[in-house]
Amino acid sequence: MVVELLERQRLGIVGFGAFGRLVAEVLGPHFDLKVHDPAYTHATLADGSDIAMGPLQDIARCDVVVLAVPVAAMRGLCLELGPMLAEGTLLVDVGSVKMHPMAIMVELIPAHIEIVGTHPLFGPQSIGNTVAGKKIALCPVRGTRWRWVSAFLRRLGLDVIVTTAREHDQELATVQGLTHLIAKVIVEMGPLPDRMTTASFDCLVDAVNMVKDDSAAVLDAIEASNPYAADVRDTFFERAAHLRGQFDAQSTP
Amino acid sequence: MVVELLERQRLGIVGFGAFGRLVAEVLGPHFDLKVHDPAYTHATLADGSDIAMGPLQDIARCDVVVLAVPVAAMRGLCLELGPMLAEGTLLVDVGSVKMHPMAIMVELIPAHIEIVGTHPLFGPQSIGNTVAGKKIALCPVRGTRWRWVSAFLRRLGLDVIVTTAREHDQELATVQGLTHLIAKVIVEMGPLPDRMTTASFDCLVDAVNMVKDDSAAVLDAIEASNPYAADVRDTFFERAAHLRGQFDAQSTP
Repeated sequence: MVVELLERQRLGIVGFGAFGRLVAEVLGPHFDLKVHDPAYTHATLADGSDIAMGPLQDIARCDVVVLAVPVAAMRGLCLELGPMLAEGTLLVDVGSVKMHPMAIMVELIPAHIEIVGTHPLFGPQSIGNTVAGKKIALCPVRGTRWRWVSAFLRRLGLDVIVTTAREHDQELATVQGLTHLIAKVIVEMGPLPDRMTTASFDCLVDAVNMVKDDSAAVLDAIEASNPYAADVRDTFFERAAHLRGQFDAQSTP
Repeated sequence: MVVELLERQRLGIVGFGAFGRLVAEVLGPHFDLKVHDPAYTHATLADGSDIAMGPLQDIARCDVVVLAVPVAAMRGLCLELGPMLAEGTLLVDVGSVKMHPMAIMVELIPAHIEIVGTHPLFGPQSIGNTVAGKKIALCPVRGTRWRWVSAFLRRLGLDVIVTTAREHDQELATVQGLTHLIAKVIVEMGPLPDRMTTASFDCLVDAVNMVKDDSAAVLDAIEASNPYAADVRDTFFERAAHLRGQFDAQSTP
């Protein structure tokens, strides 16, 4: 027990939105946890346990600092946080895109700070009861401690996919870009039929329901901050327009 | 045993495509089965059992005749089959649209023949091991034996939804029209990522996989023969175009 306490590292989280909360719930039991979010003075987890909140200076002194803020807030945060970080700190982000935020971190975070990019490929809507078997992308950016992060996440049962920011964004442009685009369109079409449904339509609705409550910041990251997302949209709409013409031409008048 | 044999009714199926086959597998054990399909001289079920094949005249003498042909073949078939049917025959179809084929049947099938429209809301890709719990739409068209059909299907464990052809086509224009449209576009986009996938994307891919091998005739029925499908496509594309503009305007250059 004493050994565990001695080994226990301090984990700081900046941002207590859906993903910051998720990180707190999953990693909280393994670290001394502290959270900074200007929108909160007090925070509790789903199980009712209190979380220590603190100013950004306190978070900067943690062994591991997780940034869980919108992509649009990344530059401002790194400018403020960078000079506060001490050598030996490991900086991790959890954003839905990797190239753009990683570039900001490399530019603004002092060279003696190690950086690892991650993207949990699940969220509050799809996590279920456990992270075991869930996928997480991991991009080594600066330093070697990504190996420790990877091993730690694997011990939690996560399926860790080590990749580059570019590979990640290319693949996720389709995976997330397409799902969120389709989900958003379907949600905007209004209430969906729920009586005479097929198994395939039920799957489509499941997909929609998992992402429809994602924040505007997540949608923005996926569609606007992923440099490959516009290409995926273009291809989708080109094919769709072509098909639409075919169906309309065949339709029974 | 003797009683069962005496009570056993003759079931004729016209068309041995994916749905004719499905009907034969599910209903075969409960009837004396005979199938007509000009494309086959011999037919076996998935379990290897032989099926009696016969000319259309033989099928016309069955107690129940199931039409499992493409919508486009319906008029020609009804013109040929109508005069062959004896009073007391129950005619059932299994098409993915109901208004158009039901209108053809009512026009061309003699008034003394009872007609029931059905649409199993599942297919070879989504049936799994059993029809229990699966949905089937049932449209009473002519006569009262739809009650017997409904009770029989319920005894098989099916969830029978009694509806009108119009209600069916309105609801399915979204349920199937949207699913097949999206699936077709996604399939045309080429191989999908399968490494860094999210749960919602996996659901989307499940939906695509369930319908991507449907025949061109099914797709044609869903998109071209359903009078409400074009409206659903229009709404989808309007919303999508609007959203596309929003995302493109926000994109990081």
